Amino acid sequence: MGLILAVDIGGTQIRAALFERGSLKPVRAERTRTEASKPGVYDRLEALVASIWPVDGGVDAIGIASPGPLDPHAGVIIATPNIKEWRNFPLTEKLKVRFGVPVVLDNDANLACLGEWKFGAGQGHQDVLFLTISTGIGGGVVSNGHLVQGYHGLAAELGHTTVWPDGPLCGCGKRGHIEAISSGTAIARYAREQIEAGRPSSLAALSTITSRDVSDAAAAGDLLAIETLSRAGRYLGVAVANFLAAFDPSIVIFGGGASNSGPALFDPFHASLHENIFDPTYLTNLIFARAALGDDAGLLGAQALAALAVPE
Amino acid sequence: MGLILAVDIGGTQIRAALFERGSLKPVRAERTRTEASKPGVYDRLEALVASIWPVDGGVDAIGIASPGPLDPHAGVIIATPNIKEWRNFPLTEKLKVRFGVPVVLDNDANLACLGEWKFGAGQGHQDVLFLTISTGIGGGVVSNGHLVQGYHGLAAELGHTTVWPDGPLCGCGKRGHIEAISSGTAIARYAREQIEAGRPSSLAALSTITSRDVSDAAAAGDLLAIETLSRAGRYLGVAVANFLAAFDPSIVIFGGGASNSGPALFDPFHASLHENIFDPTYLTNLIFARAALGDDAGLLGAQALAALAVPE
Repeated sequence: MGLILAVDIGGTQIRAALFERGSLKPVRAERTRTEASKPGVYDRLEALVASIWPVDGGVDAIGIASPGPLDPHAGVIIATPNIKEWRNFPLTEKLKVRFGVPVVLDNDANLACLGEWKFGAGQGHQDVLFLTISTGIGGGVVSNGHLVQGYHGLAAELGHTTVWPDGPLCGCGKRGHIEAISSGTAIARYAREQIEAGRPSSLAALSTITSRDVSDAAAAGDLLAIETLSRAGRYLGVAVANFLAAFDPSIVIFGGGASNSGPALFDPFHASLHENIFDPTYLTNLIFARAALGDDAGLLGAQALAALAVPE
Repeated sequence: MGLILAVDIGGTQIRAALFERGSLKPVRAERTRTEASKPGVYDRLEALVASIWPVDGGVDAIGIASPGPLDPHAGVIIATPNIKEWRNFPLTEKLKVRFGVPVVLDNDANLACLGEWKFGAGQGHQDVLFLTISTGIGGGVVSNGHLVQGYHGLAAELGHTTVWPDGPLCGCGKRGHIEAISSGTAIARYAREQIEAGRPSSLAALSTITSRDVSDAAAAGDLLAIETLSRAGRYLGVAVANFLAAFDPSIVIFGGGASNSGPALFDPFHASLHENIFDPTYLTNLIFARAALGDDAGLLGAQALAALAVPE
């Protein structure tokens, strides 16, 4: 019958869905709370998969989207910040033994890219650059119709590329990564630091500041908020110029909450990209798009990965 | 019989060689002067190919390595700095009409990468990063066993990625590209500028300075030369950390004259790479190698590209 079972492991919930190959709508879907800090995450995941497993079988493969770092070739979760009990955890092997079908795995950003390529904004393209801008910045790349995974499965970690060697400290401990400048977290932090340094802003009234707050304040004309998003957009332009020189995609897809920041982020971004790209040919027919699948991108990417691993 | 005819268009000479598929040694080879500034480059190239064309046929395809920018999908030379008469020049179409076999084309750095992968230092790897450091810095990438070409054929232009937004001006007109800091030209220029600014150095006695001179002076203990190569190596470490995060190769191959600079360049490079890479897993089992094919890399890469285009 050609069913694929897809799983998306998120920070707050684990989702599982049973798909007919190539279908956007699941035949069946369930979710459970991750409760990442409590023991038994794997047991909850296994029970969730079992709860939608078809009585009469027919599942060709299981695909899983998980936060990394992970090794997609070995099917092992190396260490996720949230789920402390998973250290070098052989996730695909355990599920394969339990359910008796091939199991494949990759990180959420790569699979969101794959999902957008097969089912969403990237359909019909062969060279896709996907960037998700939320608390961090994640990347995914399809090159000549193949997901770029790399030797250790750590390719397309584009948030952790340096655009400013003496720039702000990144969550990973290194300096000047684009994630440390243009992620939602970095946007909120820069605004807060400037307010603490005495800059006036409507944001000063808030006890905590989010990138959404910065974006709302910018839309209302707040000068600090506008400058904060402009700074983030300009460095994002440098980073994307580098990614175009590396991968030369035909489409750039933005996902993630902070990518809703609108022209206050994207006008400076486009100006910077045009200024920094060394050959204008890269921009010829290049499409910029918003991610189309929302929260389902990881789940649909997991379906696509499993379908690629086990051809019909 | 399965012959491939490979052509390498260089700044001073055009080389052509007839290979049995997969062979390192040509059956027949000739060369002619490019005389890039004089008319008739194409006629010289065509005559060269004709001069080694086998009387009894048997050529499956022609592969060509050329300086870019060029469009490998269309087979068109967009504009090479040296050969002024080639502007949007349909090179593959003209040769295809003349010789009646498929003709494929890509730039010299990409094909040197492909050559090293199929025949040289990169054999057996599936994820290869190739960097040629000479007057400029060229890049080539093999990802999961596929040459990364990109939508416009401009992928892996790694010399033109920014590692220092306010850094030195690049030949392309943009600032802070790794080519503007760590190429042979940039190394020689920095040493000269420092001498003009009054820094003492044994290099001050030379009327012109090359990167080879800097490297010799560094080996002899000249402090300015040592600092010059250290600066180039440190930024190269930042750039390669970015390339690992993007492509996650299992081997990094260095070619080009300036990559002979030895430990004065590569010790600071490795220190910087370790300092800048955000996850040490990238370096696990990662091999650093010197290009093995020398001047033949482009020719052998052209053979490999043609063989891929026309499977046996």
